[in-house]
Amino acid sequence: MFETAELGQKVSKEDYKAAVPVLRERLLTAQARLRDADFPVVLLFAGVDGAGKGESANLLSEWLDPRLLVTRAFGPPSEEESERPEFWRFWRDLPPRGRVGIFLSAWYSNPLLDRVHGRSDLSGFDNDLDRILNLERMLANDGALILKFWMHLGKDAQKKRFHTLEADPLTSWRVTKRDWKHWKMYDKFIATAEHTIMRTSTGRAPWTIVEGADHRYRSLKVGNLLLEALERRLDQQESSAPDNGGGAAAPSAPEQDEQEQRITVLDPLDMTRVLDKKSYKEKLQKYQARLNQLHRRARDEKLTTILVFEGWDAGGKGGAIRRVTSALDARDYQVISIAAPNDEERAHHYLWRFWRHLPRAGRVTVFDRSWYGRVLVERIEDFATDLEWRRSYAEINDFEQQLVEHGAVLLKYWLHITPEEQEIRFQARQETPYKRWKLTDEDWRNREKWDSYEIAVHDMIERTSTQTAPWVLVEGNDKKFARIKVLRTVCKALAERLG
Amino acid sequence: MFETAELGQKVSKEDYKAAVPVLRERLLTAQARLRDADFPVVLLFAGVDGAGKGESANLLSEWLDPRLLVTRAFGPPSEEESERPEFWRFWRDLPPRGRVGIFLSAWYSNPLLDRVHGRSDLSGFDNDLDRILNLERMLANDGALILKFWMHLGKDAQKKRFHTLEADPLTSWRVTKRDWKHWKMYDKFIATAEHTIMRTSTGRAPWTIVEGADHRYRSLKVGNLLLEALERRLDQQESSAPDNGGGAAAPSAPEQDEQEQRITVLDPLDMTRVLDKKSYKEKLQKYQARLNQLHRRARDEKLTTILVFEGWDAGGKGGAIRRVTSALDARDYQVISIAAPNDEERAHHYLWRFWRHLPRAGRVTVFDRSWYGRVLVERIEDFATDLEWRRSYAEINDFEQQLVEHGAVLLKYWLHITPEEQEIRFQARQETPYKRWKLTDEDWRNREKWDSYEIAVHDMIERTSTQTAPWVLVEGNDKKFARIKVLRTVCKALAERLG
Repeated sequence: MFETAELGQKVSKEDYKAAVPVLRERLLTAQARLRDADFPVVLLFAGVDGAGKGESANLLSEWLDPRLLVTRAFGPPSEEESERPEFWRFWRDLPPRGRVGIFLSAWYSNPLLDRVHGRSDLSGFDNDLDRILNLERMLANDGALILKFWMHLGKDAQKKRFHTLEADPLTSWRVTKRDWKHWKMYDKFIATAEHTIMRTSTGRAPWTIVEGADHRYRSLKVGNLLLEALERRLDQQESSAPDNGGGAAAPSAPEQDEQEQRITVLDPLDMTRVLDKKSYKEKLQKYQARLNQLHRRARDEKLTTILVFEGWDAGGKGGAIRRVTSALDARDYQVISIAAPNDEERAHHYLWRFWRHLPRAGRVTVFDRSWYGRVLVERIEDFATDLEWRRSYAEINDFEQQLVEHGAVLLKYWLHITPEEQEIRFQARQETPYKRWKLTDEDWRNREKWDSYEIAVHDMIERTSTQTAPWVLVEGNDKKFARIKVLRTVCKALAERLG
Repeated sequence: MFETAELGQKVSKEDYKAAVPVLRERLLTAQARLRDADFPVVLLFAGVDGAGKGESANLLSEWLDPRLLVTRAFGPPSEEESERPEFWRFWRDLPPRGRVGIFLSAWYSNPLLDRVHGRSDLSGFDNDLDRILNLERMLANDGALILKFWMHLGKDAQKKRFHTLEADPLTSWRVTKRDWKHWKMYDKFIATAEHTIMRTSTGRAPWTIVEGADHRYRSLKVGNLLLEALERRLDQQESSAPDNGGGAAAPSAPEQDEQEQRITVLDPLDMTRVLDKKSYKEKLQKYQARLNQLHRRARDEKLTTILVFEGWDAGGKGGAIRRVTSALDARDYQVISIAAPNDEERAHHYLWRFWRHLPRAGRVTVFDRSWYGRVLVERIEDFATDLEWRRSYAEINDFEQQLVEHGAVLLKYWLHITPEEQEIRFQARQETPYKRWKLTDEDWRNREKWDSYEIAVHDMIERTSTQTAPWVLVEGNDKKFARIKVLRTVCKALAERLG
């Protein structure tokens, strides 16, 4: 695979000097166009030590406008980073639309090194690579232009380069013991790299192998590849109709089926369930006391809890959430109310802002509305294209899987009420001055779309309720019953996990 | 001081039921007005355990619209938090304009407990309180409405409350061993609290002592106090002319003096200093090697380095920065290019976005332009009022002092060139296609304001160059000389600190 990158390709000083100004100018022009475009650029450099990963990243940040660019390299994770899924720190640093993010090794680093050092077997390694494929597919689907450069150097060339650097006392610091240690594992490293590149080079996130021995050759190569890809994408985008990120027109056939599909997972719920005031008070105290004790153990064992609340307008989310949080110490929980995204959030993949809020280990985070907005309101109101919301089921499952694998307890609540009960509550809100703010025209409009929402909820639950991240459907016509069911199931999930 | 909060004040159930709906409605109306107003609200609850700090915070988040409100309590700092100055985590959580932030104990917690447990002496304690005063003054000056509630309970009342809670197995979890431990230190705690309140109750960030024994009384009290203060402020703001945050008109007399003050700290610089190409190459390698070694030691010793670069347009900041960073491992440094603030940043105090970017221990952060924009471009272009930029010298000194006290090496570079040299560079940029983007109409306009800038730079250096956070003035007409001076002084500062 790497033969073509050991040919000794070179560029003369003169040719380089002639080519660079032209390349730089075109890169800058393309970057200026990118600023107004609707996608981010993700450049990833990986490869053999000494083949110019870092130097190429530096050079690009010299050639490009640094204000529209961010470079990130990752050392060992901090405590806060270890307390979240591995990809948390990569998400934190993803560039917004219009910007360039340059990543050094990044998400490839651990999988590669784990495999080379024998910490993962082949199937574990492939799992790691699958996760990477998911991430890159998700970003590409969201519009990102992804380019990955494998900077290559033959075994002898690497040795020679290290020796040259070491010979001069002023550059010897550039070669570390770690570099030599890695050199000894060269063959194994290259075999692993080959496997990685084969599996993760996709149409929308391709690898390019670059011969790194000659710095002029590799610089021009990287610069030109970036320029070509960027110009091509910009031309495409500018010539295509403004259709929200370039998604193909959605097939409209399924709509028909959906309108006919009338029995949903919500139908079997027994909406007559109630709890009398006395039992409610008793159970409330009982489960709050239990939750408090369970959570203390969870905190000590660094067990993270994530609770997601979705439901009909006036379904009682707020009240249920407060019954949970009032059993907890304020230092241990956080309620994230999800409204429309702000500027910065809108400039990223829709999951970005949820990654941002992931709790540290041992905490409870309650999402009052969540990433499921993508397949509910955004689907119904056409804020997301058909293609976008359809693929988000898989994206959401992958996201939640990462939370669960990292050890979090994840529960998702759907607070269900009947349309009749909703009308009663809307009326009550209208008549109680301090509740009136909760009721908007939008709520009334949403009510008219009850059937569409019911189908969206059905699809959501069917596609995203998993053993490890289940949906709990809550019969919510009686608020007391609903609150106790929420508390009870949180306790149950915690107790099961804590053993 | 607390006598008036041990009177046994109560509100009957009936009165409470009658008052709450009215209060809630007015609070919500005020909050809706706040959303469009230009200031944030900071509510702080501190006080005696069991007097209803947490409960009051919870209640307010039930009464108010939770989407416009954030509640924060703070446990022991995480590793990432300990690696930054103490206030970093408070800054992270400050509410933007139009929102309410509710803080439990927050910045008062450590000073109080340190004093009660004898970990600080009286003068150390007063220093802590001074820092708090600075923070609150800064926020108030920026427009924040700050209210602080001291929730009080007499010693016997506290004991009684704990016993009642403990008697019921369902509420006994609310009383911890820590609560009893604190109860035994009640008298000492109260004495310390008294001192705290006396020193930190200011006109624009007043304390109110609230009797906490009766939950109905305290809830109405807190709600009404918040309502009153909020309505008063909103009325004031709406009736005053739109003058950028309500700052009083600036005295214009000093302008006169300034225009006459002609000898600046920049004048004595020897702008003819140069370095020939050969010495440059030698010194570059020498200092980069040295910097690399010094930084490795700094990283191992968790010594943080913060470098600030300011200077004339085309002064050579970018080139100097790259000569520093190319001596470092990409994982260890970060360059923050400061341009116009984004939405989220604009909704906070101007220092907020710099707090946000503070590095973890052992890293190097380079600011390409910085918080000094406040006293340079914002002063010259009238983006900040006279009052605002004048008070920012003190705010900046306090900010930097916190960095230095936390152990960071902080260096600030002014890259100086003459107007003649600037013109040459502007011309060169205009003639080199790939450099043309660097030159904007604004650059030419700024050039016309050279004299005003010179005065602003002079004032800035005079007021913010301190022993622990000095400005280094760099004679920059010769780029080679400038780059070496930067590298050399960074090395010197690191070597001195590392001993």
